[in-house]
Amino acid sequence: MLAVAVEEAEAGLAEGGIPIGAALFGPDGRILGRGHNRRVQDGDPSMHAETAAFRAAGRLRGYGRTTMVTTLSPCWYCSGLVRQFGIARVVIGEARTFSGGHDWLAEHGVAITVLDDPACVRLMTRFIAERPDLWFEDIGE
Amino acid sequence: MLAVAVEEAEAGLAEGGIPIGAALFGPDGRILGRGHNRRVQDGDPSMHAETAAFRAAGRLRGYGRTTMVTTLSPCWYCSGLVRQFGIARVVIGEARTFSGGHDWLAEHGVAITVLDDPACVRLMTRFIAERPDLWFEDIGE
Repeated sequence: MLAVAVEEAEAGLAEGGIPIGAALFGPDGRILGRGHNRRVQDGDPSMHAETAAFRAAGRLRGYGRTTMVTTLSPCWYCSGLVRQFGIARVVIGEARTFSGGHDWLAEHGVAITVLDDPACVRLMTRFIAERPDLWFEDIGE
Repeated sequence: MLAVAVEEAEAGLAEGGIPIGAALFGPDGRILGRGHNRRVQDGDPSMHAETAAFRAAGRLRGYGRTTMVTTLSPCWYCSGLVRQFGIARVVIGEARTFSGGHDWLAEHGVAITVLDDPACVRLMTRFIAERPDLWFEDIGE
């Protein structure tokens, strides 16, 4: 499942954007929605990778058996999304370069898996070194 | 400032949508962005009132002196937005019909004002009674 999120992150990077990707999967493993950060591409600060994947999935009635897969630990905004909509599980590529609200989600019953994937770490490490302006803008720092 | 958010909520209701409105104000009281819930209008579950106002404000560098005004207590998704981007203050029309993450935001240093405005309470009370399906879909319950 992480491969889909990584594809999204790489697509975002190729577009000149922030390389974070995500996908929302149904209980049967089907992709409900996928997307990547669109701050640069659309001038839209509300489209983080997770919110883009959630949006792409359209209107759904209940997220209790869905899994959000993301290349990077979800920020508070995206963690709030997961908690509000009762997404059951979050699979995270890495939480080394940024650690958001995943411990808080775990405390509230969300199943959290941190893969510590070297490719995800490399992608963000390079991006943060090259474009710290964009990165800190994206997390409001 | 609440009047702008109420105007947005009423505009959303007139469009057949969920009547929650919000606006983001700068330190000088200027409106940076305003919007309303667009689940029904755009088939977009990611556009809550607060995220719509945040999006409408476009890319900004720092929210530390901004105020988010919303007709209804922000859900976890929108509370996460406020925390992540360091929005300084949230003014809330009412928290009777729904109570989201505003106490959590207060614990994390956000200035919270709950106005308990009767017009906001009436708007949501009527909407929830008339369209419980839409309302519970919007908060993932």
